[in-house]
Amino acid sequence: QPVLSAGSFSMGGASHVVPMRLHQANRARLVNALKATLRKPVEENPSAASDASGVVLLQGGSEVPHYDADTSYQFVQESNFMWLFGCAKEDCFGAVDIKSGKSVLFVPRLPEDYATWMGKIFSPAELQAHYAVDEVRFVDELECVLRSFSQTLYVIHGLNTDSKNYAQPATFRGIENFTVDKTLLYPIVCELRVFKTEDELAVLRYVIAVSSRAHVQVMKSVRPGMYEYQAEAEFLHHSYAEGGCRFTGYQCICCTGHSGASLHYNTNQMPLKDGDMCLFDMGAQYHGYVADITCSFPANGVFTADQRAIYEAVLAANRAVLAAMRPGVLWTDMHVLSARVLCEHLVRIGILQGDVDELMRAEIIYMLYPHGLGHLLGLNVHDVGGYPLGVARPTGLGISKLRTARALEAGMVITVEPGLYFIDHYLDAALGDPAKARFFNAAVLARFRGFGGVRIEDDVLVTEGGVELLSILPRTVEEIEAVMAASK
Amino acid sequence: QPVLSAGSFSMGGASHVVPMRLHQANRARLVNALKATLRKPVEENPSAASDASGVVLLQGGSEVPHYDADTSYQFVQESNFMWLFGCAKEDCFGAVDIKSGKSVLFVPRLPEDYATWMGKIFSPAELQAHYAVDEVRFVDELECVLRSFSQTLYVIHGLNTDSKNYAQPATFRGIENFTVDKTLLYPIVCELRVFKTEDELAVLRYVIAVSSRAHVQVMKSVRPGMYEYQAEAEFLHHSYAEGGCRFTGYQCICCTGHSGASLHYNTNQMPLKDGDMCLFDMGAQYHGYVADITCSFPANGVFTADQRAIYEAVLAANRAVLAAMRPGVLWTDMHVLSARVLCEHLVRIGILQGDVDELMRAEIIYMLYPHGLGHLLGLNVHDVGGYPLGVARPTGLGISKLRTARALEAGMVITVEPGLYFIDHYLDAALGDPAKARFFNAAVLARFRGFGGVRIEDDVLVTEGGVELLSILPRTVEEIEAVMAASK
Ligand SMILES: [Mn+2]
Ligand SMILES: [Mn+2]
Repeated sequence: QPVLSAGSFSMGGASHVVPMRLHQANRARLVNALKATLRKPVEENPSAASDASGVVLLQGGSEVPHYDADTSYQFVQESNFMWLFGCAKEDCFGAVDIKSGKSVLFVPRLPEDYATWMGKIFSPAELQAHYAVDEVRFVDELECVLRSFSQTLYVIHGLNTDSKNYAQPATFRGIENFTVDKTLLYPIVCELRVFKTEDELAVLRYVIAVSSRAHVQVMKSVRPGMYEYQAEAEFLHHSYAEGGCRFTGYQCICCTGHSGASLHYNTNQMPLKDGDMCLFDMGAQYHGYVADITCSFPANGVFTADQRAIYEAVLAANRAVLAAMRPGVLWTDMHVLSARVLCEHLVRIGILQGDVDELMRAEIIYMLYPHGLGHLLGLNVHDVGGYPLGVARPTGLGISKLRTARALEAGMVITVEPGLYFIDHYLDAALGDPAKARFFNAAVLARFRGFGGVRIEDDVLVTEGGVELLSILPRTVEEIEAVMAASK
Repeated sequence: QPVLSAGSFSMGGASHVVPMRLHQANRARLVNALKATLRKPVEENPSAASDASGVVLLQGGSEVPHYDADTSYQFVQESNFMWLFGCAKEDCFGAVDIKSGKSVLFVPRLPEDYATWMGKIFSPAELQAHYAVDEVRFVDELECVLRSFSQTLYVIHGLNTDSKNYAQPATFRGIENFTVDKTLLYPIVCELRVFKTEDELAVLRYVIAVSSRAHVQVMKSVRPGMYEYQAEAEFLHHSYAEGGCRFTGYQCICCTGHSGASLHYNTNQMPLKDGDMCLFDMGAQYHGYVADITCSFPANGVFTADQRAIYEAVLAANRAVLAAMRPGVLWTDMHVLSARVLCEHLVRIGILQGDVDELMRAEIIYMLYPHGLGHLLGLNVHDVGGYPLGVARPTGLGISKLRTARALEAGMVITVEPGLYFIDHYLDAALGDPAKARFFNAAVLARFRGFGGVRIEDDVLVTEGGVELLSILPRTVEEIEAVMAASK
């Protein structure tokens, strides 16, 4: 009979053991933050009750069927629910009573025949021990249990600044009998999710290590003539079979050659041609937490002079940012730093010409670097909390794409992913505009048409003293060539 | 630059080339069937216009976001749309004018910056050549183009008899200006989908061959101590890397030991124990068409006497059905045949006792075989058309689970998947009921508690002369032991 381990999740073998105290701690952090907010004077916080009571109620996700068919997408849990309860099962709710801190996980009441089809039905006691919540009840008991805590429910509702979608509030039959606050909870949860606890960092370190090894595996397997999707298959296999990661944090981006200029290309159907660059952006997911890593390297294992020049420009930008990152530094400044380093290198290569300050003022680099430097990382690949109240989205061609404009603080995990891309319609537009064309050496640029792109993406923890690099990969030209040569 | 091959789909290399004439043929079959129906006298078919005009309009699927995050489930196309247009992209529509047979694929009008993010935007001309439709237009032109054909739209709407969900009708802004018929189309499409053309069979043969080889690969890789999900990872990797199959037709079921008694168990998190049986039900998907194959074998590669006895009972049932299948035979009769063979074997093993006729009348076998013999297979793993108008769902403990009660006809593809499972709550109930308990030898049965289950699932084409077995696998005890020994 399958068993549920008490107080932890693991995929067995050498895979990471996630203690459920991780989520207990998140619940405690949330309760403290809510109490602090609710005790503020009413004029500061109009949605607050004065006595710091009420219940946090989150609704987990449901399976999504394939249209009318009786198959479904493989279930992925909603990330706020995952953060607070660590439960990756469908059709659950979770509640935390603010006054007592008591947590209740609500699970669907399954018919006996569920066991015939899907496997053992775990008892509330087994689930309570596994998830380390105070109590497990059935979803059909929601109204009655919640009422025993409070008349006031705090539910998630708010704008996700990356997707522009709204997080949807919990709902159930009987909710009309409660006072429901939809404004207080979401920004507080987002803000807490920005700062990773030690237990969360352990999961992130693990999934990033698994993903790093899987990328190396891919690098070793790459040969001209194989297909992009075979690289994806290699990554997926290593992540799942060796790391117990059933899901990825996002759809695998495996582009080679010209497609490398399409930032999120993920059809992955083309063959790898001798002389092409590969740009592979893939990250595994474990217990909800995701990695986000990009490696760029030549399909045949040896950089040409042009490939080396572009690659080293991007690596220099990446390394310059890593060296400059520390608490207090503005992410917008890091973005500009990466852009300037790229600019300097492109002038040296001869693609751009003129004074670097002037190039930067004219925002020329963003024709070749049309995305932000990086983003917060956690349970979402583009994690929440990038633009809390009071942090405005910067304006400007390149910098407006940034998914956060915050100052760095210890405990943030963020990606550093500068890139250079030769995107035909951007370059055509630039060359067609005299104000921009004068910064380009058209003859040199012509050599790079069809080159695709290079992105070097690392996952980084901000520490008190600077950063900890979580993604460990062969990064220099020499390291990459050595890894790829060894597998030939 | 990525290219779209004219008139075909393929994942390259040795993977199958699907000619888009497959879908042209489906459109022609549909137009013919609709014309035949529409020309029937009005009293036979009240929803018909008399002049066989109108437009078939299908809406493809859309990406499903992960809640408010900016990631999504990897898009899977709606199967009726896939059948008629062979287009696996999101947010499309397709129309077929009944009178002229002219087909139009409607694609979203993508902003230029789509190319920056997702890759080359193919022109309508490139898409028209690739999908072999008569015309490609933009979705925002739907109303105008449809109006040029007819005032009457035929859209899909109806009950899926496997999921009990309803197929949803196409809808767009402006549809209120048309006469929309929701009743005629769906049963006609379902009925056509039951019978596979030669081009469809070629795809099915391919995806079933890939899946068969992947199962053999898994069989060779299995060792006590590994985890169920590592077998799944092996299957996925082989299907994708070697066969170009990015998706499976359904969530992989990898159960071992006791979990083998849970028919659709798919958490796949347990370790394989020495002495356990494995029951692995997995099928790849290619261009929408899916395989559905189950292999059962001992984790350590050598059957015990009890494992051999149960396995050979199931294999005998599978082989008896294959030998008896031919056009005209009722699937319900095949189901009963499989149940009887299982019964006979269980009596011989000593688990059941008494007269086989009496056992069959008492429906005892369905305590150990609680599912139908098999189901139609195609673009859905449980394919449509199992219960057309006039074919009633049979009653009775086991047989009511059948997903079709039709008579076999040439061109049908159907699974043959008898099984035996030792399901605690069924056995407890049987032993607790004197009317049932007398058929069991409780002492012998006790030996099989925790055994799990055995299912042997093949994919079969009904031919004029009998059947063609599409899934080719090591099936006898000797074949399986030889394959597994060779990899040790
Ligand atoms: Mn990223
Ligand atoms: Mn099946």
